Amino acid sequence: MSNQVGPTDATRQRILFASLQLFGLKGYQSTSIADILHAADAHSGSLYHFFPTKQDLLLAVLETYRDGIEPMLLAPAWTNVADPIERIFALLASYRRALESTDCTYGCPIGSLALELHEPDPAVRQLLAVNFLGWVRHVRACLDAARDRVPRDVDTELLATFILTTMEGGVMQSRTHRSLHAFDASVAMLRDYFNRLESAARRERP
Amino acid sequence: MSNQVGPTDATRQRILFASLQLFGLKGYQSTSIADILHAADAHSGSLYHFFPTKQDLLLAVLETYRDGIEPMLLAPAWTNVADPIERIFALLASYRRALESTDCTYGCPIGSLALELHEPDPAVRQLLAVNFLGWVRHVRACLDAARDRVPRDVDTELLATFILTTMEGGVMQSRTHRSLHAFDASVAMLRDYFNRLESAARRERP
Repeated sequence: MSNQVGPTDATRQRILFASLQLFGLKGYQSTSIADILHAADAHSGSLYHFFPTKQDLLLAVLETYRDGIEPMLLAPAWTNVADPIERIFALLASYRRALESTDCTYGCPIGSLALELHEPDPAVRQLLAVNFLGWVRHVRACLDAARDRVPRDVDTELLATFILTTMEGGVMQSRTHRSLHAFDASVAMLRDYFNRLESAARRERP
Repeated sequence: MSNQVGPTDATRQRILFASLQLFGLKGYQSTSIADILHAADAHSGSLYHFFPTKQDLLLAVLETYRDGIEPMLLAPAWTNVADPIERIFALLASYRRALESTDCTYGCPIGSLALELHEPDPAVRQLLAVNFLGWVRHVRACLDAARDRVPRDVDTELLATFILTTMEGGVMQSRTHRSLHAFDASVAMLRDYFNRLESAARRERP
């Protein structure tokens, strides 16, 4: 008896990871099944066994991102960052590092798929939406943990949505310009907004 | 002698307009040459005469958007809006109408192409960037026209970039959720930021 991953699960994981990487690098439609088989060093029989259609692969990739938000995205970004508002800016800084380390060719995979797929099947669109909502929920929890530093009449759900907007819009422009400038400009303006929100909250609670 | 558009120019225009519409609706890679010929009611000989490659079509579409910013986007949005800051929100409202009238399937065509094309040729990337920069330049001109309503230490180029970020990130999420909520949330937060900037500017200039 063993809890080790068996060869078939390992093959599934290789196919899934290759798909995740290729959809991120090349996009969904530009990635062929042959590309995935080559990158995963797998046979088409294995692929079709685990993922009967290319869309099944896409759904599994989107589920992987959904399940990875905490362990893969937030936990590394928040190591040694306890302050809830600084956690938001640390999360944004992790996207800046992704841009920087790829000469600004990085794109948020969820955002890219959300715009690449013009008529996604409901199951795909639903999982894209779930990924956005998961991100927003975690950022909102930071804002709620800093509730007394944000004016009372500011809705933290709207503000958290605006922070995802800032990340996605900044990444899109930086990727297009192949320059960090637009991302940095967007985060600088968001920081200025936060500074003003925190000042206003201090005036509310003398 | 006549200044009327000749039949060949008319064919070119039909092909170009069909491409612009299809790239916006379906994306670049999902649009086939056959789709374009069908929509434009044109023969392949005409298409290849004017546009030897599909990328030539894309470049012409991006040039059309670039040249259309003022007459097609800003002029309609700014009819009867004189106040420079209200012009910014009127521009954002025109994107909201595009979302609303398409049941939130609308995507900014430049933003969608910027994320769909993962390794665009330099000429394509350059024209995507030029479109973003044109948008930002016009918004910055509004901010500069309202310079005394924005605190002195706020850089209007960074703020204008942040406004494009707000539009693109908001459209992306609203399209994914098939709901205006995320776009409205983003614009509401931007308006709150502007209210705080204008209050601060008034305190600077008593």
